[in-house]
Amino acid sequence: MTRLFNDPATFAQDMLAGFVDANARYVTAVPGGVVRATRTRPGKVAVVVGGGSGHYPAFCGTVGAGFADGAVVGNVFTSPSAAEAASVSRAADAGAGVVLITGNYAGDVLNFGLAVQRLAVEGVAARYVAVTDDVASAGPDEVARRRGIAGDFPVFKAASAAAEEGADLDGVEAAARRANDATRSLGVAFDGCTLPGARAPLFTVPEGTMGLGLGIHGEPGVSEEPMPDAAGLARTLVAGVLREAPQGAGSRVAVILNGLGRTKYEELFVVWGTVAALLRDAGLEVVEPEVGELVTSLDMAGCSLTVTWLDDDLERWWRAGADTPAYRKGAPVAHEGAAYSAQDAATAAAPPASSSADPVPAEDDAARAAAADVVRAFEAVVASMGGAEEELGRIDAVAGDGDHGRGMVKGSTAALEAARSAAEVGSGPAGVVLAAGDAWAARAGGTSGVLWGALLTALAAELPAGRAPSAVQVAAGGCAGYDALVRLGGASPGDKTMLDALGPFAQALTAGVGAGQPLAEAWAAAAEVAVERGEATRDLRPKVGRARPLAERSLGTPDAGATSLGLCATAVARVLADR
Amino acid sequence: MTRLFNDPATFAQDMLAGFVDANARYVTAVPGGVVRATRTRPGKVAVVVGGGSGHYPAFCGTVGAGFADGAVVGNVFTSPSAAEAASVSRAADAGAGVVLITGNYAGDVLNFGLAVQRLAVEGVAARYVAVTDDVASAGPDEVARRRGIAGDFPVFKAASAAAEEGADLDGVEAAARRANDATRSLGVAFDGCTLPGARAPLFTVPEGTMGLGLGIHGEPGVSEEPMPDAAGLARTLVAGVLREAPQGAGSRVAVILNGLGRTKYEELFVVWGTVAALLRDAGLEVVEPEVGELVTSLDMAGCSLTVTWLDDDLERWWRAGADTPAYRKGAPVAHEGAAYSAQDAATAAAPPASSSADPVPAEDDAARAAAADVVRAFEAVVASMGGAEEELGRIDAVAGDGDHGRGMVKGSTAALEAARSAAEVGSGPAGVVLAAGDAWAARAGGTSGVLWGALLTALAAELPAGRAPSAVQVAAGGCAGYDALVRLGGASPGDKTMLDALGPFAQALTAGVGAGQPLAEAWAAAAEVAVERGEATRDLRPKVGRARPLAERSLGTPDAGATSLGLCATAVARVLADR
Repeated sequence: MTRLFNDPATFAQDMLAGFVDANARYVTAVPGGVVRATRTRPGKVAVVVGGGSGHYPAFCGTVGAGFADGAVVGNVFTSPSAAEAASVSRAADAGAGVVLITGNYAGDVLNFGLAVQRLAVEGVAARYVAVTDDVASAGPDEVARRRGIAGDFPVFKAASAAAEEGADLDGVEAAARRANDATRSLGVAFDGCTLPGARAPLFTVPEGTMGLGLGIHGEPGVSEEPMPDAAGLARTLVAGVLREAPQGAGSRVAVILNGLGRTKYEELFVVWGTVAALLRDAGLEVVEPEVGELVTSLDMAGCSLTVTWLDDDLERWWRAGADTPAYRKGAPVAHEGAAYSAQDAATAAAPPASSSADPVPAEDDAARAAAADVVRAFEAVVASMGGAEEELGRIDAVAGDGDHGRGMVKGSTAALEAARSAAEVGSGPAGVVLAAGDAWAARAGGTSGVLWGALLTALAAELPAGRAPSAVQVAAGGCAGYDALVRLGGASPGDKTMLDALGPFAQALTAGVGAGQPLAEAWAAAAEVAVERGEATRDLRPKVGRARPLAERSLGTPDAGATSLGLCATAVARVLADR
Repeated sequence: MTRLFNDPATFAQDMLAGFVDANARYVTAVPGGVVRATRTRPGKVAVVVGGGSGHYPAFCGTVGAGFADGAVVGNVFTSPSAAEAASVSRAADAGAGVVLITGNYAGDVLNFGLAVQRLAVEGVAARYVAVTDDVASAGPDEVARRRGIAGDFPVFKAASAAAEEGADLDGVEAAARRANDATRSLGVAFDGCTLPGARAPLFTVPEGTMGLGLGIHGEPGVSEEPMPDAAGLARTLVAGVLREAPQGAGSRVAVILNGLGRTKYEELFVVWGTVAALLRDAGLEVVEPEVGELVTSLDMAGCSLTVTWLDDDLERWWRAGADTPAYRKGAPVAHEGAAYSAQDAATAAAPPASSSADPVPAEDDAARAAAADVVRAFEAVVASMGGAEEELGRIDAVAGDGDHGRGMVKGSTAALEAARSAAEVGSGPAGVVLAAGDAWAARAGGTSGVLWGALLTALAAELPAGRAPSAVQVAAGGCAGYDALVRLGGASPGDKTMLDALGPFAQALTAGVGAGQPLAEAWAAAAEVAVERGEATRDLRPKVGRARPLAERSLGTPDAGATSLGLCATAVARVLADR
């Protein structure tokens, strides 16, 4: 278990402060994470990696010459926010653009995807790649749904080495995708880890068994099997990974035998003896293998095997030198560029002055009245979420981590405060919605915070600056919000997410308004549709993404995100009806 | 717990095989451990480190350019044998001699000390340094009794860097001693580790508490304290280490915050935040700190703080580059020297042809009769130890690990077999004793095996080659054996060891023979003295060296080693009387 902490709530930031202090010759803190202590060479594409904390050396331990330019650092096992990902990217950018890479988890995909959009608006070219190496997390026909585990490491390294060689933005993105396409992993867990301050482990594995394919945050595995000896485990891992060898793969491979935290180096070396022999028996030539802890899960017991099938470029990138806090190899690339003071770095990470949070002033009384309506709408949403918090948590606990109700209360409350402030300084409705969306995303945490932030941002963009919107513009905003979430999340209708309610809502609203109904009437009808569709998610397939062990999963529960969307739409309908 | 192994009995060798496979670009296997994959530069002093397994990256993970030339690898938490330490040293030697360094544990001190003596006989100049950084293991007035923990690391590094710079044997030994004199550590443990195949941890720490100063194999600590938060732990560690600052220490320090295996990087960084602030508050400037796992104890929960007060040389050695399997830093020192094939390395590690195990032929019937007497003496010792095995184990379990009886049976049985073989090929009594001593040391395991090996080797050296010895020569052999153990073990009379019986025995034997008594008569009287003195150890102070937690220790138990010596002397007395 995790025993050493001060306030569990500040564990990640305390960790980061100590990390930066101990590694000041490598890294400098910026809002949201770290960048190299020296500025990235002008004209070099920057590689920014990241994700939740608890996986050291991933992710901040790989920032340095020859490897990543920056790392975005979230709370333990929690995605950092889009604002944090954008901040680190701005500081790392050397004018040639940024490639952001994370493991393929819903929160990371949303936040880093949103960061790419924000950076584009600011004129920073950015790309995003999600690593999908874990063969146990989805079948070969659904590779895009696979999680990223220790395969993060060779993908980060390939992109970083390509950037160091001078590849342009397309080239660095292509290097990351090529490495990801060539990489497969399979992991096992023997025992769970305990979050700082928690009383019990996140999950447990029955004594004498192992969870095959169990994810690095306890996500469900493929099967539970009797605990084998070291040679037996090696056979299982090698067979599972080689079964998924990419088509046309060569015979040279980079290999990682990764310990998750409590399975120690000596045990890994015992397993490696058999792994190496089996790989050679399969005709493979192992290039500079890594046996140790590269992507951990606090003190979780378990390990994983990662194989990257190499071509000439991938092999050169794998062998390339690096000099970072946790990973040093070969002749280190020179630390080029001027030193970055902490103040310089923080300044570089700040959003441009013309940020989206600037108020867009209301031009007339109608605009001011509409802005006041928006504030009342958020008041209604806050009241609704307060009443539903417990029930939403209960629903979410079946397939998620049970924090949806809490997140909605925190997010909507933050949004209301920001909306009030914006309205007070004279913003029009677009500015008020924008301010509310930024606050929701920044303060709610979790996936729903990002989604609501993106939804409100897209809605605001459809509203006329400084003036009261028409009903058609509001409906267009709803559709724009839906589209934004589809782009961000990679989920499709029927995946049992908020989209299952939002799409039909936006469609019904647009149809009603298009048929000439007043906004309040069309909205009320659309809200009823949203509620119905939220309830209907109980008949859909299991929720995608992070989930509790299989035994606890249920097909018969509505989705919490779709349910809360219906409640919010209903609350707003009452405000519109009362105008 | 340690979960991954094949046969627990071969865990260390399976680990070593996997380690060498994964790190073939750094290391090559030799009998007893590993050396660098490239030959040590001719004329460079070689640094050989070592100890038991279970502490990775210590010890084999530090072999490579800029760091150690070789590592001797014992079983888990068990000293390697003198033959293994000599073997690795021979392979690493580049003509300028070898400095051997281990933590200060009885088994390591004995075996590496004996290896130095063997190497000297073969013409290889060698020195031995034991690291004594653990301030909790003995008071400031008994520094030489302190254990070595993570302070091993800066001491190894200083000696290695000095050797890399071209220091001679005196200079490298002085560098190790200077670093050791400047280094202090204090550790804590929260939970014990489990040996491969064992059902229960080596020790446990009560829930909600920590063992302050508890050793890396569960040796007793200073106190049991309530579990503090991270900042509180930092205060305890910093205060404990700074209290022991060397006289005249400067203000620049190398610092290691070392994880023992299960206490993870994130937790260490949280603790580091406070440690760094406290060290700066104390006016110290921290130079290139290391926060991570450098000297572990399988998956033991806990950590330790090590501070080395730097002078100009120590700072240069600490900052120097290194390129090893587990530790890489700065500009790596070039891998000089030709590649070492595994076969070359094994050949280099072999003892010279004129080894001490060669038979020294008996020159006459009297010599053959004396050789037969020696064989009969070992038969009697084997019979005596077989009968006493259980009782010796019971005595040993009070203060040791309870394996003394087993070790004596294994060692004496191996010695008897070797003695018979040597006598069959015509060796005289000296050759038979020498062969028996080598076999005892190689096969018994544990501290008693080394001691008996050294005792018999020293005895044999006093006997005339190829002829029957006089009573005076036998008595001189007993005294030489006693002297050898004093030199080896660093223990003094009254420390409750085998020496407490052996010294009075040798003295009584010498006195009796000197007074003109026949050997059988003098020996019988001396054996009685040995038995009495063995029993008298129950009134002496607690046994030194490795011990179970304080609560289990007892002043009222005879020492197992002194007891078994009395039994052996008595058995031999009967053989002499029957001649």
